[in-house]
Amino acid sequence: MVKTQVLSILSENTSGVLSRVAGLFARRRFNIDSITAGTTSDENYSRITIVTSGEGLILDQIENQVAKLEDVISVERLYPDDSVARELVLLRVKANDSNRTAIHSVCDIFRTKVVDITPDSMLIELTGSKRKISAFIELMGGYGIIQMARTGVTALARGEM
Amino acid sequence: MVKTQVLSILSENTSGVLSRVAGLFARRRFNIDSITAGTTSDENYSRITIVTSGEGLILDQIENQVAKLEDVISVERLYPDDSVARELVLLRVKANDSNRTAIHSVCDIFRTKVVDITPDSMLIELTGSKRKISAFIELMGGYGIIQMARTGVTALARGEM
Repeated sequence: MVKTQVLSILSENTSGVLSRVAGLFARRRFNIDSITAGTTSDENYSRITIVTSGEGLILDQIENQVAKLEDVISVERLYPDDSVARELVLLRVKANDSNRTAIHSVCDIFRTKVVDITPDSMLIELTGSKRKISAFIELMGGYGIIQMARTGVTALARGEM
Repeated sequence: MVKTQVLSILSENTSGVLSRVAGLFARRRFNIDSITAGTTSDENYSRITIVTSGEGLILDQIENQVAKLEDVISVERLYPDDSVARELVLLRVKANDSNRTAIHSVCDIFRTKVVDITPDSMLIELTGSKRKISAFIELMGGYGIIQMARTGVTALARGEM
């Protein structure tokens, strides 16, 4: 069964490392669901988080190759029960005087923030787990999504280090 | 003067496009501050958001090269006044019985969510603009940041399409 896998990579903060990591996945035609990269509290280091749903054995091989890259310090597999995984989505949905209140009450339930409004649309900011975000996107699809940008998942292990 | 630039790239959702885009930046040794990639509401397409603070003229050239890539549909430059840019950060900070309340009140002011607690630490989720996030990270630095993962910035234009 194909399931979602999360790789958390700690690397030096160099301009080439992201391209090389992504290249290792591309060479095997292994699809990346999402990738996020940002500096750690020490700006000399980056944390890259990759979510895939590809075949486990091939992912093991890619993980080994990633670990051998010059700038990579460590690669860690994160599992749902032992980690916190969150994503941020910006989404512009069609909205007018007749349905804005209805949309807004859905937004309230999901604890989103409305960050911009025009006569024909609302721009909404949402943070949450993959499941929460999927549910919200599906609901907003009924009104008509004009534009959407998502960060991809970032994650950290729970509990003690 | 070097300032932050945001590129919003719409592309086909293929396994190679991210590596090729990142490669164009790496070849010029042009540092990427952050990169986020995720599908749009139509899963055949991805939106890649890149934040850089490099030299404008070279970025113009890279932008032209990105626009010519096979899988890329459009490249748009987003400006702070006309767009909404947000980032998500997960951050584990040292916390114990004597300072947990103080940390929690800072968290309240920044409207963060505490998503995990151990006897020695708190795992905090924060969403906001680059400036808000920098301010929070600086404050938490005083307590001791154990681990941090950030998604990088995603952005959408304000107003009408």
